[in-house]
Amino acid sequence: MTHGRINDKDLRAFAASLLTAAGTIPEEADITAKALVWADLVGRPTQGVWRLKEICPRVRRGLIRSPCEPEFIQTREGVFQVDGRNGSGRYVGHLGMEKAIETARRHGVCLVAVKNSNHNGAAAYYVELAAKAGMLGFAFTNAPRRVAAYGGASPVFGTNPFAFGAPLRDGNSVLIDFSTSAIAGSILRKGAETNQPVPAGVAVDSKGNAGIAAENGPVTLLPFGGAKGFCLGLLVEILAAVVTGSPMSFQIPSMLENPDASRPTGHAFLAMDIAALLPPDAYHARMEMLVAAIKGSALLPGVTEILLPGETRWRNYRKQLKEGVCLDSNTLESLRSLAAEMGIKPPW
Amino acid sequence: MTHGRINDKDLRAFAASLLTAAGTIPEEADITAKALVWADLVGRPTQGVWRLKEICPRVRRGLIRSPCEPEFIQTREGVFQVDGRNGSGRYVGHLGMEKAIETARRHGVCLVAVKNSNHNGAAAYYVELAAKAGMLGFAFTNAPRRVAAYGGASPVFGTNPFAFGAPLRDGNSVLIDFSTSAIAGSILRKGAETNQPVPAGVAVDSKGNAGIAAENGPVTLLPFGGAKGFCLGLLVEILAAVVTGSPMSFQIPSMLENPDASRPTGHAFLAMDIAALLPPDAYHARMEMLVAAIKGSALLPGVTEILLPGETRWRNYRKQLKEGVCLDSNTLESLRSLAAEMGIKPPW
Repeated sequence: MTHGRINDKDLRAFAASLLTAAGTIPEEADITAKALVWADLVGRPTQGVWRLKEICPRVRRGLIRSPCEPEFIQTREGVFQVDGRNGSGRYVGHLGMEKAIETARRHGVCLVAVKNSNHNGAAAYYVELAAKAGMLGFAFTNAPRRVAAYGGASPVFGTNPFAFGAPLRDGNSVLIDFSTSAIAGSILRKGAETNQPVPAGVAVDSKGNAGIAAENGPVTLLPFGGAKGFCLGLLVEILAAVVTGSPMSFQIPSMLENPDASRPTGHAFLAMDIAALLPPDAYHARMEMLVAAIKGSALLPGVTEILLPGETRWRNYRKQLKEGVCLDSNTLESLRSLAAEMGIKPPW
Repeated sequence: MTHGRINDKDLRAFAASLLTAAGTIPEEADITAKALVWADLVGRPTQGVWRLKEICPRVRRGLIRSPCEPEFIQTREGVFQVDGRNGSGRYVGHLGMEKAIETARRHGVCLVAVKNSNHNGAAAYYVELAAKAGMLGFAFTNAPRRVAAYGGASPVFGTNPFAFGAPLRDGNSVLIDFSTSAIAGSILRKGAETNQPVPAGVAVDSKGNAGIAAENGPVTLLPFGGAKGFCLGLLVEILAAVVTGSPMSFQIPSMLENPDASRPTGHAFLAMDIAALLPPDAYHARMEMLVAAIKGSALLPGVTEILLPGETRWRNYRKQLKEGVCLDSNTLESLRSLAAEMGIKPPW
């Protein structure tokens, strides 16, 4: 089979069974699997079940801890401090945003600052939790260093994604989720697998020269949009690392440099209850006016439609919920061999 | 005099006296003057006292209201809803961020949503208030439409600045403040005054063609960084307009289209108390590590130093606090004629 379509419920149960077999307790496995399959459903397979080939061995070796029993301390009415205790980043992240939502329901707004978690995948997943709950949500996370400061040629920041979500009346959500580097780490890695050169202006080698090919070894990514991307990468670092107490991006061991180390990661989640400001119906009416103004814009030559942030994701989601999740042959093969090791039968 | 240096205290008193003569009550005049002179001090004269030539006549004609007596309603412990009642944007903005700071001191975090304010100038001013109070601060504001959605050729958003601040131990602050358009409206306007062509890739004419000159009439600005800038412009619109109940950018009458209309503007301020997460000393030690990593980066060819966001501003601030505020001859002349109209003697 060169690619396959798998029902999302079967895929989620399969992912959870692999995680459980690797030593994850069922509750953590289930939520981690949910977040992984969500990324596949929305068409972001680099954050999807493909990651199990790196997560499962790390769980088995104790580099991701389960049960992690994250510690939540409410320091003020609107602020929680969380120690992820080296647990699944997707599980800890899910709990963190849920806590922000629950607290914002009472106090209007809540900040949850998480240290010592792990890579938590698609940031859009967390802000969608907020949006589905009728809130505006921010999610920030740091990551091992890959990205230079503006003017710099050596890495200081992770790709430090910036994410924001807002609900729409039809159940979809505005989902903003972008890396603050000029190219996403996952896209670069995928390009390297197929020996594609690095596009101009997105990365430099150790001498600061641009245009090197990905196969020439590690490169430093540049921030997107020049100084503005640097500003946002720094903002994410301050929110996800400086104030959470989690190691900064430049202190997290990278997979290449030290595959045997844990990679403690910080997150920050912020939820704001829209109902504290206006009734849901009034909010949706206003969002509809804004969306109509955007969709009704004159178009640049060659453009056929303006898409909202998240629109490609929710189109993919609906399609794949109906037709099954499309997995490529590499992913199928890596899941098959992972399942074989653990004596589990894949759902295809 | 082709340009002049004026002591900042004299300039502030002079600006306040012009505002008062135009009909602003002293308290509002004083804070508005403070915010104007701050922009000059940090080297952003397009948001400084140069603006008095547009503000004073609007106050006199009742298009900016004084006293405005903004209405603050606390809807949840961490949320305020503010009606700026068409007052000075700088005054209402200052009060809004001060309220966010005071409330975050108790609850850890506070969101202040403002409608029916006016243009509030340098967004960095508000996030610096938060940083000086030991907080992380966000400030968002919308503005009359100038900027297209990604793929669009007609304006939907204002230049919708995005701002974030964080304190440093030495009393300076990280000050992130950028428009979400590919070029700031004020820079474009300044270019148009001197007949400079619009740089490539930052604006289009009504047919979506790039590269038109500023003197060829109104242009639509493009978002910076492609889709990412569009995402941020939309985020600002949602926070500053959709949930505040203030008109959206595309609903605010522009100065060109209707100089006699009021221009109701929305803001959102968010303050997060760092002390809710870690002691000030630990915070500053961590920030110093991060700054050292940034400053110690290998440099790109041709770069001599990496500057933090805000660093140019605080260098200008310190220099001009000592040497006086440098005003260009246009600004001096417009202030002189404004003062003459009102029978006030300039401080030079």
